[in-house]
Parts: sequence; structure tokens; C-alpha cells
Amino acid sequence: MDQAERGIVMVFTGEGKGKSTAAFGAALRAVGAGWKVLVVQFVKAPLATGEVVAAARLAPELRVVSAGKGFVREGTGPSLEEHARAARDALDLCRNAGDADLVVLDEVNFALSKGLVGVAEVLRFLDERPPRMTVILTGRGAPKELLERADLVTEMREVKHPFRQGAKARKGIEF
Amino acid sequence: MDQAERGIVMVFTGEGKGKSTAAFGAALRAVGAGWKVLVVQFVKAPLATGEVVAAARLAPELRVVSAGKGFVREGTGPSLEEHARAARDALDLCRNAGDADLVVLDEVNFALSKGLVGVAEVLRFLDERPPRMTVILTGRGAPKELLERADLVTEMREVKHPFRQGAKARKGIEF
Repeated sequence: MDQAERGIVMVFTGEGKGKSTAAFGAALRAVGAGWKVLVVQFVKAPLATGEVVAAARLAPELRVVSAGKGFVREGTGPSLEEHARAARDALDLCRNAGDADLVVLDEVNFALSKGLVGVAEVLRFLDERPPRMTVILTGRGAPKELLERADLVTEMREVKHPFRQGAKARKGIEF
Repeated sequence: MDQAERGIVMVFTGEGKGKSTAAFGAALRAVGAGWKVLVVQFVKAPLATGEVVAAARLAPELRVVSAGKGFVREGTGPSLEEHARAARDALDLCRNAGDADLVVLDEVNFALSKGLVGVAEVLRFLDERPPRMTVILTGRGAPKELLERADLVTEMREVKHPFRQGAKARKGIEF
């Protein structure tokens, strides 16, 4: 990548499918262009999902870290404080991704909506990152401060969804 | 993949970015789940785009064929008839992808909107495919017959786009 070029900030949000999926597609494309890519998954716990398994074949240019604790549910599983600590650690990983050309903050919008990390901290990461670094932030409900800060925003709008019609999530398609 | 499971039909459409990108992300995920994947690009001519280069590292499970002739412009380059022949050949590749668990018809909606291939032929491919095969169709302006036939439709809606603000397409992000 031309080091003189400035990276951009992209947000994939909305209720429809394809947000994290598009981020992984962007990671694939970037690796093919010779970029170094770091995907940090907020909230999601380490799991051998299809994207994680396949991404390993694109190492070391593509690195995926599932830095979350899994489902955020009050009264069961990790406490909100544990989830928040994981989210802060995830953001630290992004801050320390100095030589990555593309950093994906997967599901960070969900972490923001749950208050696990503050929008000011995410904006500060964007401000302080190396200028050439492109950043993709995914998840439904992106806060308006992030939409304002982004160069490109795509809303994935759900037009039709099979789960509404009684089908169940299946390996290969959903995870 | 459980051979007893039925594949689904997904459409990524709309004016926003992320349609083909999400399809490639879905291909990555599917490969990680142990699926065989064929991506057939309509209209797009063979080019060492980032996604094509990186996809080669996921061979043989992931195969990408850019089966088009490039930009469709009247009066210059290949004739409409040549473009149409390429689109028909592309659809034949999909028809012959018998053992693929996922087939992506990238930019087929564009081919449909230009009349390079007919919606009836695409619907027939969907009807006649092996039941376990999942299919993703991308491109803006998906015809309503396809939206009706699909199990899942996501519209990528453009909220904000840097090219509207004067930036140029750049390698790694756009191609």
C-alpha cells in the first residue's frame, strides 16, 4: 500500500445480515492486495466459526482475535464488568495494531450499545491511529457520533429473513 | 455439510457498498465450515483484484471464475451479444457446479438489468440446482421475481460514500 495514502473509516450497520460478513470479505480483499489485516471481534468469544477457521489460512497477513466473552445476559454468565474489561482489552489490541493497514472492529457497535466501551474511546482510537490505517466498524445500532466520523456508511437493511419464517441458523451460512 | 439440509437462496442488493464483499465473506466462512464454494463473476473480466488473489489461497475449496467481458458500454469494447454470450457461459458454469455447497452469482443482477441473461433462466437454475446447494446472488437492482424467490434478501443502503466527497477508488478497499 502506498504509505502516503490516507486510510478511511467505514461503518457497516443496520438490522440486516451481511455486516460482519462484508467486513471479512473486505479483509480477504485487503490481504489479496498485500495489506496486513487485524480483525478484533468484540463480544464474540473464541469459537471455531467458519470465518475464523478459514482466516487461519490467510495468516500471517490476516489475524483474527475473538476478544469477547460471549452473550451479554444479565444474571447469567460473565458480569457486565467482565464484558467491559474484555471490550477495553479488545480496543487496546486495536490501538496496538500499529503496522496493520486494515483493522476491523467487529461488533463494536453492539459493545457500544451495551456501554461496554464508550464512544469517546472509540473516536479517540480513530483520531490517534496511524493515518494510513483503514478501519471498519460493524454491528447494528452504530451511534451517531460514529456515523458522523465515518467516511463511508452502509446500512444493511433486512428485506426478508428466513429465521422469521421458522428456519434455524446453520453452520456455513450463519457462523 | 449435512446432505439432508436444504440450501437457501440469498440476495445482496441495493445501491450501497458491501454486496460482492459480503458474498466473498460468506465464501470465506463457508470454506472454513468445510464447504466447496464456486464464485462466478458476471460482467467482471479476469483481473488480479484483491479478492481474486486472496481467494487463490483458499483453493481448491474456493474457486473464483471471472467470466465477464468487463464494462458494458455501447459503441465501444465487446458487443452486447459478446457480453450476453459470456453471461450465458457464466450461468452454464453455475449449472455445472454440481458438487459445490455454495455458488455465488456475483453481479448477476447487473447482467439481468442489461438483459445479458434472462430472469427466467436464473430462476430455472435455482429450481434445478441440487437441493443442498446454497446460492448467493449479488448486484444492484435485483428483479422482483428474484426477491420473491429468495429466502433472504439484504439491501445494502448507501448512507454515506467518500466518492461523493471527491475521494478516488483505491486498491485494497475497492478492488
